Amino acid sequence: MYSVTPVNHAFDDAIKSRIHHKTKLRGSLGKLEEVALKLARIQFKSPEDKLAIKKPVMLVFAADHGVADFGVSVGDSELTSEMIENFVKGGAAINVFCRQNGLELEVIDCGTRHQLALPQVVNQRLGDATKPIHQEEAMSIETVFEGFRMAKELVKRHIYNGSNMLAVGEIGIGNTTSASAVMAALTGIPVAECTGRGSGIDEEALKRKRMIVERALQLHYANLTDPVRVLACLGGYEIVQMTGAMLAAAEFGVPVVVDGFTSSVAALAAVKLAPGVREYLIFAHQSAVYGHKQLLARLDAHPMLHLNLRLGEGSGAALAMPLLHSAVNFYNEMAAVDGVDASNSNGTGAN
Amino acid sequence: MYSVTPVNHAFDDAIKSRIHHKTKLRGSLGKLEEVALKLARIQFKSPEDKLAIKKPVMLVFAADHGVADFGVSVGDSELTSEMIENFVKGGAAINVFCRQNGLELEVIDCGTRHQLALPQVVNQRLGDATKPIHQEEAMSIETVFEGFRMAKELVKRHIYNGSNMLAVGEIGIGNTTSASAVMAALTGIPVAECTGRGSGIDEEALKRKRMIVERALQLHYANLTDPVRVLACLGGYEIVQMTGAMLAAAEFGVPVVVDGFTSSVAALAAVKLAPGVREYLIFAHQSAVYGHKQLLARLDAHPMLHLNLRLGEGSGAALAMPLLHSAVNFYNEMAAVDGVDASNSNGTGAN
Repeated sequence: MYSVTPVNHAFDDAIKSRIHHKTKLRGSLGKLEEVALKLARIQFKSPEDKLAIKKPVMLVFAADHGVADFGVSVGDSELTSEMIENFVKGGAAINVFCRQNGLELEVIDCGTRHQLALPQVVNQRLGDATKPIHQEEAMSIETVFEGFRMAKELVKRHIYNGSNMLAVGEIGIGNTTSASAVMAALTGIPVAECTGRGSGIDEEALKRKRMIVERALQLHYANLTDPVRVLACLGGYEIVQMTGAMLAAAEFGVPVVVDGFTSSVAALAAVKLAPGVREYLIFAHQSAVYGHKQLLARLDAHPMLHLNLRLGEGSGAALAMPLLHSAVNFYNEMAAVDGVDASNSNGTGAN
Repeated sequence: MYSVTPVNHAFDDAIKSRIHHKTKLRGSLGKLEEVALKLARIQFKSPEDKLAIKKPVMLVFAADHGVADFGVSVGDSELTSEMIENFVKGGAAINVFCRQNGLELEVIDCGTRHQLALPQVVNQRLGDATKPIHQEEAMSIETVFEGFRMAKELVKRHIYNGSNMLAVGEIGIGNTTSASAVMAALTGIPVAECTGRGSGIDEEALKRKRMIVERALQLHYANLTDPVRVLACLGGYEIVQMTGAMLAAAEFGVPVVVDGFTSSVAALAAVKLAPGVREYLIFAHQSAVYGHKQLLARLDAHPMLHLNLRLGEGSGAALAMPLLHSAVNFYNEMAAVDGVDASNSNGTGAN
């Protein structure tokens, strides 16, 4: 049902050999070598190809959550729209990091309570806000599929426009509550280990948040039989569209840089739906959000950045972009040990 | 004896307030906020100042080690000079990363066995190679001070030339043996915990390496009374000059980005000699080199990058540079919460 373009392992030996014959000790570039191999498996048509990052795009998915009315967040839903305005004005962290690191930024309204009439924001609204997950289903199954469809159109547009690397991030007051519930449902990890202070709530609010997640899981217990149902019962509009974007990227054969906790939960859902998606995902950073470390372990992800971020917005994914360029550049530009790698003897590495 | 320009904590409240009133949750940019505060303490003459990184320079210190003749490394001393040649040709990892991230690269010959007649390499030779540390003192006390003096001249030249950020890295076959010994001597941590596979030696070579480090510590036991003596007995010419460069940078009030294990050992020596140096050091990455994690903990350092590097050359420091720019850029460019920060209302954050 979810078609994924298989990555190409046929050149693995040639690529690894190329990496190993660079003028360095074997394996000494650590995770950059893994990223280069990963990108080569996605991009290469021939073992002689060079790696390339073209028109990278940061997709920030925004939505509101019914559960935000129940004291699980520092801010209230208005903040989601205020931050979208800030994105459009260029004053947010994600604007700064996208400008610095050469990413195009696109903000997608997946369903916010306070809709803004801003032409710079892509309208992919699935509603005003999800229903409170501890009282009813967040959304219908049909809405989940509609979200996947919209995300796929978005991804297709960027790929047709020449992008060969996407990054995903999110904003949505209340969304770590939803994400924690989805994580608990998809992994079986106890709620207390999936649910933390999110944006920085106090002890009392954390108790409330955990109780709400517990209640949501109990309420929907019988329906949490597959990832789409999990997303319908417990998800958010932005989580659904991030999952859809990752499924689509893997279908079109393009890698996705995944931001923090909520984005990683969307990634988990995508991988559960289509395991082949995993080969397209690059997890940018280990955040300070409780549960993220364990979630990354489940995904066998070992991010390059440890910045203690808990901002969302795609900030960690944008910050990881120079490292991806470094993986590309060492592969393309470094000299090879004498005589081993003739294709590098044209001196592209020099100067 | 080692004069350090004290960093300025007088504007701490103003700087923290500026950071906290950016359009983000308090503390949500994690380590980038710490870096911004650190740089501001070094750079600011007024609380209204902006941060800036000017003409950053990567200094790669190269030297050979007598102990390399005793089977403690994968390569032999010739490789040190071969890699220097590669640096000059532009084909090494450090060339690639310096080009990408806007760092000027300078290679300093601190004492190699196979001296190269290359005008691009700065001659600060203290000898051909240190003596084998398990048989005699690596160098004299006078040589250590001569290394400090040379490193200071080098640093001064770059600062007078307009650099306000330095990065240090090294190359030298055998130098993790020397660095492990220095670490053990300066920290009291058992040799087995300070000494690992370095560039990737096998089990047998590791045993030999640990035995050599143990023997060196026993031989010089009575002389390991202060960091300069430790460097003389156990150090390397490049380690000494890195220590000297960090001392000088702190004297001139310029921050230093520290690369991996061997560089961090030099940093430890500098901090032991003048604790105020610590405020000028930014530890770039936690490497895969055994002992580095524990060394970083001793230095209360929590690096941003976890790349499993074990290359040296300054590679991790060069890779961290975009994150330092991100710290600067979020501080200078992000919008402030309405009305709180009038100095940011000129719209520099927009577009």
